[in-house]
Amino acid sequence: MTVATLNMVRVDRRQRASLQAQLYSQIRELIISGQLRPGVRVPSTRDLVDQLGVSRNTIVYALDQLIAQGYLTSRIGSGIYVADLPTTTTKSSAFKSFSPVARPPRIALRARRLLRESIAPEYFSNKVRPFRPCQPAVEQFPIRNWNRARSYALRADRREMFGEGDPAGLLRLRRALANYLRDARGVRCTAEQIIIVAGTQQALSLIATLLIEADDPVWIEDPGYLGARAALRASGGRLIPVAVDSEGLSLSGARTEPPRLIYCTPSRQFPSGTTMTVSRRLALLELARTLDVWIIEDDYDSEFRYVDRPLPSLQGLTDEGRVIYAGSFSKVLFPALRLGYLVLPEGLVEVFRKAKEIHDGFSPTIDQATVAVFLEEGFFSTHVRRMRRLYLDRRDLFLDEAEKWLAGFLTFAPIEAGMDAVGWLEAGRDDLQISEQLGNAGVMAPPLSAYSIGACAPGLVFGFTAFSAAQIRSALKAISNTLHL
Amino acid sequence: MTVATLNMVRVDRRQRASLQAQLYSQIRELIISGQLRPGVRVPSTRDLVDQLGVSRNTIVYALDQLIAQGYLTSRIGSGIYVADLPTTTTKSSAFKSFSPVARPPRIALRARRLLRESIAPEYFSNKVRPFRPCQPAVEQFPIRNWNRARSYALRADRREMFGEGDPAGLLRLRRALANYLRDARGVRCTAEQIIIVAGTQQALSLIATLLIEADDPVWIEDPGYLGARAALRASGGRLIPVAVDSEGLSLSGARTEPPRLIYCTPSRQFPSGTTMTVSRRLALLELARTLDVWIIEDDYDSEFRYVDRPLPSLQGLTDEGRVIYAGSFSKVLFPALRLGYLVLPEGLVEVFRKAKEIHDGFSPTIDQATVAVFLEEGFFSTHVRRMRRLYLDRRDLFLDEAEKWLAGFLTFAPIEAGMDAVGWLEAGRDDLQISEQLGNAGVMAPPLSAYSIGACAPGLVFGFTAFSAAQIRSALKAISNTLHL
Repeated sequence: MTVATLNMVRVDRRQRASLQAQLYSQIRELIISGQLRPGVRVPSTRDLVDQLGVSRNTIVYALDQLIAQGYLTSRIGSGIYVADLPTTTTKSSAFKSFSPVARPPRIALRARRLLRESIAPEYFSNKVRPFRPCQPAVEQFPIRNWNRARSYALRADRREMFGEGDPAGLLRLRRALANYLRDARGVRCTAEQIIIVAGTQQALSLIATLLIEADDPVWIEDPGYLGARAALRASGGRLIPVAVDSEGLSLSGARTEPPRLIYCTPSRQFPSGTTMTVSRRLALLELARTLDVWIIEDDYDSEFRYVDRPLPSLQGLTDEGRVIYAGSFSKVLFPALRLGYLVLPEGLVEVFRKAKEIHDGFSPTIDQATVAVFLEEGFFSTHVRRMRRLYLDRRDLFLDEAEKWLAGFLTFAPIEAGMDAVGWLEAGRDDLQISEQLGNAGVMAPPLSAYSIGACAPGLVFGFTAFSAAQIRSALKAISNTLHL
Repeated sequence: MTVATLNMVRVDRRQRASLQAQLYSQIRELIISGQLRPGVRVPSTRDLVDQLGVSRNTIVYALDQLIAQGYLTSRIGSGIYVADLPTTTTKSSAFKSFSPVARPPRIALRARRLLRESIAPEYFSNKVRPFRPCQPAVEQFPIRNWNRARSYALRADRREMFGEGDPAGLLRLRRALANYLRDARGVRCTAEQIIIVAGTQQALSLIATLLIEADDPVWIEDPGYLGARAALRASGGRLIPVAVDSEGLSLSGARTEPPRLIYCTPSRQFPSGTTMTVSRRLALLELARTLDVWIIEDDYDSEFRYVDRPLPSLQGLTDEGRVIYAGSFSKVLFPALRLGYLVLPEGLVEVFRKAKEIHDGFSPTIDQATVAVFLEEGFFSTHVRRMRRLYLDRRDLFLDEAEKWLAGFLTFAPIEAGMDAVGWLEAGRDDLQISEQLGNAGVMAPPLSAYSIGACAPGLVFGFTAFSAAQIRSALKAISNTLHL
């Protein structure tokens, strides 16, 4: 009978772990790794006290734990032995019939497709610096009002706030939102048509999962939003880029087959900034009716409109139930909140609710309740008005300063809405190369070509909303210096 | 030239919407619906003042808005006309070549599969009542400490807390969690192997999306967790039920093909309550090595162990990188938080990070930071200890009272850990029918058969952690009365 030496076991009184825990884990490791073989006897407690210089109780408790867990067995009057455990070097007998050839566990085709996807290209580091597009001015977010709304929301039933929630979202929020969307955005909806999701990205991901089969043709604005492209492609959608002209998504031109789904941003096309005209909207709806396809209306920042009143939503122009309206609180409140919503035709509500449940259960309740109070109590509209004024000022400053530093190099169209400006380069310039050059100088201005599948006119995208006057000035000056304008 | 009458337009001073908004939306509706045809002239402002009884400015502003949006056109010196818009009754010319046959927009096969899925059967209403399984005692949650941790977390950089976040999760939380998991759960990991997700459900959903192809065989504990079944099936996995015996997931018995993935709950099998023995764990790892398959270790409530010390995780027994460890804060903090985590083999980190990004961007930052502070400052372990004591008391009370009211009808095994008890019925009893009978009497006790794919011994599942002594007593008494025991 072999008696183990346990010579490799050492205790260290300076470690945070207790001596007992150190003994336990070291002996366990020797057993698992096969260095202590089944049937080997463990030295007596007295020997271990001498050998390790720790108290008897420490040793007894560590060995007891290993016995309780089945690593060691105790035979009365005979001592403690390493249990007869399967080790990782012996083959399991029950499955001898299977091929023993080791294939590495594989990942799915979907996953391999994903690895080639770049939703956030290298232009976007996590650090937000001028002029990263689509960034709200979070330093202006009214935390005090937000916390007040949260405290108020927490007065609701404890189990409702902390326990299991409805996959469709908190009814209180869906009601407040339905009122807001009808009133402010001309959306035709009831609370029952709304599903609360984790931002536009989850909205698009659910849409892609539920409405797209592998290889389905999907029309997508080009240039367009990278998150939509990634979500639709991850579900196997075959993206068909559709150009954007001065009226919005272009419907003319040669296309060989009807799509399954059309993705668009009518309120303000991202990144070009075009608002889809009423005439084009009606033509798009008519086309969708003829081809019987879904339209995804991604309305991500229409709260920030600087001229005229906003056009009502595309969804509100029809009652045919083929437009899915997606919105988000990321721009109008803050990105790290991760709340958005879908307004669905009635026939799709049940399947989206189930998909949301399987994807992540439901969205965090306290945040949902806080947004509901924020809407109900008018904090929301106050904040939107304040930000609209601030962004308008920043827009004006940006365009003035850009004229001063970049005139002749970049051409800016009027910015009627939204959080970004497109500066167009002369035809033939390489926007990717210029953007990289600016990136090296510490200024972020993603190239239009990064948002494009097909060929597009060269240009750079500038987010102007998240940056102070000083930041805007110095970054534009840095561009001018870097490019020797 | 036709002049419109606008006889259908009415304003109502009692409505919340302004007179101008009422005018605008009614005229717009007439144009969109085709009741006002292109080219028709709108009555003069003066006529409309007379006709509608509103001020000139109201009319001018409403018409201006319709002109700005393209519904009306103004011809100088001639008046205002309905614009030449495509209406929903004319066909769009660009697509005449497509078949005009209307097919209803279809949903994907995945979506149709989902509609047949029932992750939450009718036994689970949203209202939590005794004895809904897996419910923490949220009325005992230390809100004050939680808010303190949140305030502390909010002192961090504003843009980090409110702006864009890392899809993998807040580094601060991943670090605190890696320490906790190494120390408390024997998980082998660094912060870089962790991805923060929206609870176990999102963890399983990501796993199913990334590791399962349609029709891949998947071993799943039977009876087992419905959320896992739903997620794996939604990705097209072919579920192969594997029985659970007294040592945990059974590895013997006839099986015709190796799976792609094995799902299990070794710490405490849900719902049977068995802890997988060390011997079985090692055999499972060896089998997985031979067949080269992924193992999913779902460790959803191992913090609550009432006898012995917890067994270290299955993941910690191997360094081969084929075990994916999933955990959640839903049970140990609260369900509506929607935070959980995956500990991944290094080779899977990048693809899971991308999938998380495409699914929903990232998880809410303020909550992540709050949990990090909760862990760092010891609030977490204090809360776990308090809940363990409370649940131990409730377990003892539950078993005592069950003995008093249900003896002879249900048999309970000792409850060594977790939040639920299984009461076994005599062979041949119909647990589904009994559960429905209890449901009608206001007591929730889901039948084991609801968690089973194959045949299983009949029994009822009782969650005992979320309910007061009075609730436990009266619900058990109600069962006894209902069933005439």
